[in-house]
Amino acid sequence: MDEFRLIATYFAPLASGVPGARALADDAALLTLPPGKQLVMTTDTMVAGVHFIGNEPPALLAKKLLRVNLSDLAAMGANPYAYLLVMSLPKDTQELWIQDFARGLAEDQSRYGCTLVGGDTTATPGALTLTLTALGWVEAGRALTRSGAAPGDRVYVSGTLGDAALGLEVVQGTRRVTPAQSEFLTARYQLPEPRVALGQALVGLASAAMDISDGLVQDLGHLCRASGVGATIYADQVPLSEAAAPLERRHALEAALTGGDDYELLFTAPPEKEPALVAVARTSGVVITCIGNIRKGEDVRVLDADGSSAFNIKTAGYKHFW
Amino acid sequence: MDEFRLIATYFAPLASGVPGARALADDAALLTLPPGKQLVMTTDTMVAGVHFIGNEPPALLAKKLLRVNLSDLAAMGANPYAYLLVMSLPKDTQELWIQDFARGLAEDQSRYGCTLVGGDTTATPGALTLTLTALGWVEAGRALTRSGAAPGDRVYVSGTLGDAALGLEVVQGTRRVTPAQSEFLTARYQLPEPRVALGQALVGLASAAMDISDGLVQDLGHLCRASGVGATIYADQVPLSEAAAPLERRHALEAALTGGDDYELLFTAPPEKEPALVAVARTSGVVITCIGNIRKGEDVRVLDADGSSAFNIKTAGYKHFW
Repeated sequence: MDEFRLIATYFAPLASGVPGARALADDAALLTLPPGKQLVMTTDTMVAGVHFIGNEPPALLAKKLLRVNLSDLAAMGANPYAYLLVMSLPKDTQELWIQDFARGLAEDQSRYGCTLVGGDTTATPGALTLTLTALGWVEAGRALTRSGAAPGDRVYVSGTLGDAALGLEVVQGTRRVTPAQSEFLTARYQLPEPRVALGQALVGLASAAMDISDGLVQDLGHLCRASGVGATIYADQVPLSEAAAPLERRHALEAALTGGDDYELLFTAPPEKEPALVAVARTSGVVITCIGNIRKGEDVRVLDADGSSAFNIKTAGYKHFW
Repeated sequence: MDEFRLIATYFAPLASGVPGARALADDAALLTLPPGKQLVMTTDTMVAGVHFIGNEPPALLAKKLLRVNLSDLAAMGANPYAYLLVMSLPKDTQELWIQDFARGLAEDQSRYGCTLVGGDTTATPGALTLTLTALGWVEAGRALTRSGAAPGDRVYVSGTLGDAALGLEVVQGTRRVTPAQSEFLTARYQLPEPRVALGQALVGLASAAMDISDGLVQDLGHLCRASGVGATIYADQVPLSEAAAPLERRHALEAALTGGDDYELLFTAPPEKEPALVAVARTSGVVITCIGNIRKGEDVRVLDADGSSAFNIKTAGYKHFW
């Protein structure tokens, strides 16, 4: 395959909305930020055999790659704007694979309002490796960060937790569920929904925010460290989906507390913001659940329904490995 | 190895110069562009076994990765600002490797005035894969692009050409040279010098510009296509280094015309800019050589010293492969 022909055929059309993308034919992209905005930038990579199996439909991989990055923008309250794509492709990659991958990007570009503006395409003797760098913007000084949580704030999450971890078990064949459960959980693992509109709506309301990619307890630990606080959350308040709730409670809760890949938002807000949050949840169409409180301290405590101390968590979250 | 400890130990110190990098501990970087500037963004990836051998000193790889991206910024006349780094590391990667890699980044950060602001680190079952996204800025509307060349413009290159391709042959053991030649050519291949100051100085002088990464003739072809013009260049005016010049002329010229990885600047300017270019070359300390002219047409012609038509080019440039 000829790199230049591939770019012209499948990727240049994705870049047609932004003149500064220069049809992917210049050395770099040239972008103009609206005045009074700050730039928000994030990058995430997905490697076959680590972050995905490798036999997934290419369009699905493309969407997940874009969405995990958009989830980081959402966590900062940012408006998506543009992205760069780097693909390192095994030599046996078929052109049809690339065509379908580009189709997935096209669909999600228009869904989330962002545009391809640059990238790089190379061969690899190893695993298919996909890297995306996403750009967004926020009003200057208004970005959500992890560091603003204060004692007395409530802890909230969007959506339901643990579905992606259970979905991975379904995909790997280690968990048997009904066809309806399988469909829902698999979709939650393969195609997360970045909470872009919710993130933007939380600007001015949330005192701290992040997305849950490594598991609730571990990620809440990061937020607490960045804010210099502790947190107490209540296991029976952690929201489970209709697909996860019927499973054995211990398994479902473990997935919700420690499972990765949910890409829901975790955020904190002072109690007086509760009415505004209820309104935001209604407007954005995303369920928001209060699962606990921020307090002085340095630890994250998970209390069971009877108030007894720590739920027996097998692991503190997804372990990054090599 | 623990991803979070690695980041805190080796990479967070590289991000300390920019508050918006948030010590690499938030979901995304938050950057403020000076008013009246446009953002310039580029990304390049390097894969072991494709772009490098794999046994190179890590600091050298780090520098090359940053520099090939800075070369793209230079080609747009941009001022380097910040970068994001993605590493996919084989499981047997040693911590010392990472320490040395970070040291290389630290040295080049201060050399070129840019700062790490984010990234991602993962395992890979395949080849070591390094991706860097670089950000710079230009005065709004003043970026150099590939599309402004006009008939009558002169064609210039910076530095000397072909050294990197010859250096690769030296590294691979397929070309025997003196120790002095070996040292020079190897360094030119392993550690290119992005023409950052020159690129910025060319703003307002050059009608079109790009960096030479795929070989002079192929890259000049891209510039001509983007500008809708043709070009004639003269083989005996293509600048060769003191290390390349003593080699058999046909080999040295072939490397200069079609060899990749030089990362010199290729640019065009109307004849009346020549005095200003001479001054810029003196100020930036980089030799600039006129190698031909832009004319109406769609092709790149290489003429030999006696004016006879096309030099016998074996290949039209570096072939991207998979």
